[in-house]
Amino acid sequence: MGAAKFIRGLVRRIDPKRLTVVVNTGDDESFYGLHVSPDIDTVTYTLAGVVNPAQGWGLIEETFCVLPALERFYGKPWFGLGDRDLATHLYRTDRMRQGARLTQITAEVARAFKIKSKILPMTDDSVRTFVKLRGLAALPFQEYFVRRRARGVVEKIELRGIEQARPTREVIDAIRNSAATILAPSNPFVSLGPILQLDGVRDAMSKAKSRVAAISPIVGGKTIKGPADKMLRGLGMEVSPLGVARLYRDIVGLFVIDNVDRKFIEPIERLGMRAIATDTIMTTPERAAELASAVLRALEV
Amino acid sequence: MGAAKFIRGLVRRIDPKRLTVVVNTGDDESFYGLHVSPDIDTVTYTLAGVVNPAQGWGLIEETFCVLPALERFYGKPWFGLGDRDLATHLYRTDRMRQGARLTQITAEVARAFKIKSKILPMTDDSVRTFVKLRGLAALPFQEYFVRRRARGVVEKIELRGIEQARPTREVIDAIRNSAATILAPSNPFVSLGPILQLDGVRDAMSKAKSRVAAISPIVGGKTIKGPADKMLRGLGMEVSPLGVARLYRDIVGLFVIDNVDRKFIEPIERLGMRAIATDTIMTTPERAAELASAVLRALEV
Repeated sequence: MGAAKFIRGLVRRIDPKRLTVVVNTGDDESFYGLHVSPDIDTVTYTLAGVVNPAQGWGLIEETFCVLPALERFYGKPWFGLGDRDLATHLYRTDRMRQGARLTQITAEVARAFKIKSKILPMTDDSVRTFVKLRGLAALPFQEYFVRRRARGVVEKIELRGIEQARPTREVIDAIRNSAATILAPSNPFVSLGPILQLDGVRDAMSKAKSRVAAISPIVGGKTIKGPADKMLRGLGMEVSPLGVARLYRDIVGLFVIDNVDRKFIEPIERLGMRAIATDTIMTTPERAAELASAVLRALEV
Repeated sequence: MGAAKFIRGLVRRIDPKRLTVVVNTGDDESFYGLHVSPDIDTVTYTLAGVVNPAQGWGLIEETFCVLPALERFYGKPWFGLGDRDLATHLYRTDRMRQGARLTQITAEVARAFKIKSKILPMTDDSVRTFVKLRGLAALPFQEYFVRRRARGVVEKIELRGIEQARPTREVIDAIRNSAATILAPSNPFVSLGPILQLDGVRDAMSKAKSRVAAISPIVGGKTIKGPADKMLRGLGMEVSPLGVARLYRDIVGLFVIDNVDRKFIEPIERLGMRAIATDTIMTTPERAAELASAVLRALEV
């Protein structure tokens, strides 16, 4: 998750209390009757410093005792739920059944993990990302991403429930009132896409455009991790920073690309946004912090 | 749980397929949003041969990884939920949310554990046992039994929801159609009480009275385990097999007491039931099987 790496760098440069992270919930899924929010958890565990560093998701020092016991009832699992991670899902599900908003619950979980930043689900409503692969019916995101390991030619991304869903007041306020809004180097379709397609989000961003930056998830014609490149290709778009920048032309004032993609600065600027090139490969937290510094500097924060 | 020990003996003497166990659900409780049915699970794990033999409940070779992780959200736990046990609760809760009957779910869990006997919750409705202790408000059963370790003077047992609850058709059919019905040496108030107070159960038993036996949970003036003796005393009843037999006079044709309590045979028979004395202390599965044989023989099964 490029976003998690970037966030880890960002909190090395700014006071974590000043940071608000708006998180996609289109990847949420129900497993064993539990509400799992993979993106929220990754951000939470990252900010708490307890994310599994090898995986980039899940918890460090995790155990897997419950999962094999569930096999008796559900058959072979394909989604890895650790025991300590499960406690988070149990709490979230319990609170949701009590009628609490996901926004509230996410804040409670963050507090339990002693996180100083704000973590906001994009919406309290249900949005479910489905991926349509060539020759197959649309699959729920986790089935595509985890079970099928993101294999196959992506023909379409469906965000079910997106028309009825509303971004929370907290999300819109964060975009309106923050000194800067940064679109992390995340998948533009399945990570940022759901957030941006919520009614009012693009509008709020376009009004704050000069304070909105985006970091290209495409470097040298491909993604560092994840299927964003395959999706751009499958959906008939250019697999380059320019291809991504086009998706954000109405909402982004600054586009950040990697040094290897310098040649795209000019075409991107022709879209009506500034573009800068820097080192965007976040192999260490310090390099992620350098990237964060470069973006903040360019935004004059 | 005297019932579990007795069942373990019983299946050494009869084909497990012929056995139906009707189980109290008044002890059920919600923990972390999960529906826990302690008595059903104890019977299930016992019949599956995977019950923790030292405790008499829970699973053998259990791990406890999730529970400490829940502490972050819920504070210190007082009810021990093992990881493998948790899988059972997750499945039950998931299926209940899908609208399945507890009877159906219990059968599914039994099947998953390859159990040949039938395990029937007494009802699919909600009954919750509360225990009123001197000087305290009524406590949910698990708080009294586990958290307070059954300490205190019991003034009253409340079975909330018992009037509205209905025994299942399966339970009534089992009483009507079985060659014998045996009330295990269980607590007459909080284990057998809820079953017997369901509308229609006493009636079905009284009609089958000659085929109904009960085993005294009181031996030599006290219980082997559990608070039945304290409850009899607290509720102003005689702490003896006779005190228990009085509770069953309309529904039991045969009352089984321990050899040490022979002197109660005559007073019990004066209640209008047969009484026999035998060794009722089930220190080993084989001794439990001997007890089962004695009961079955006396019932001419």
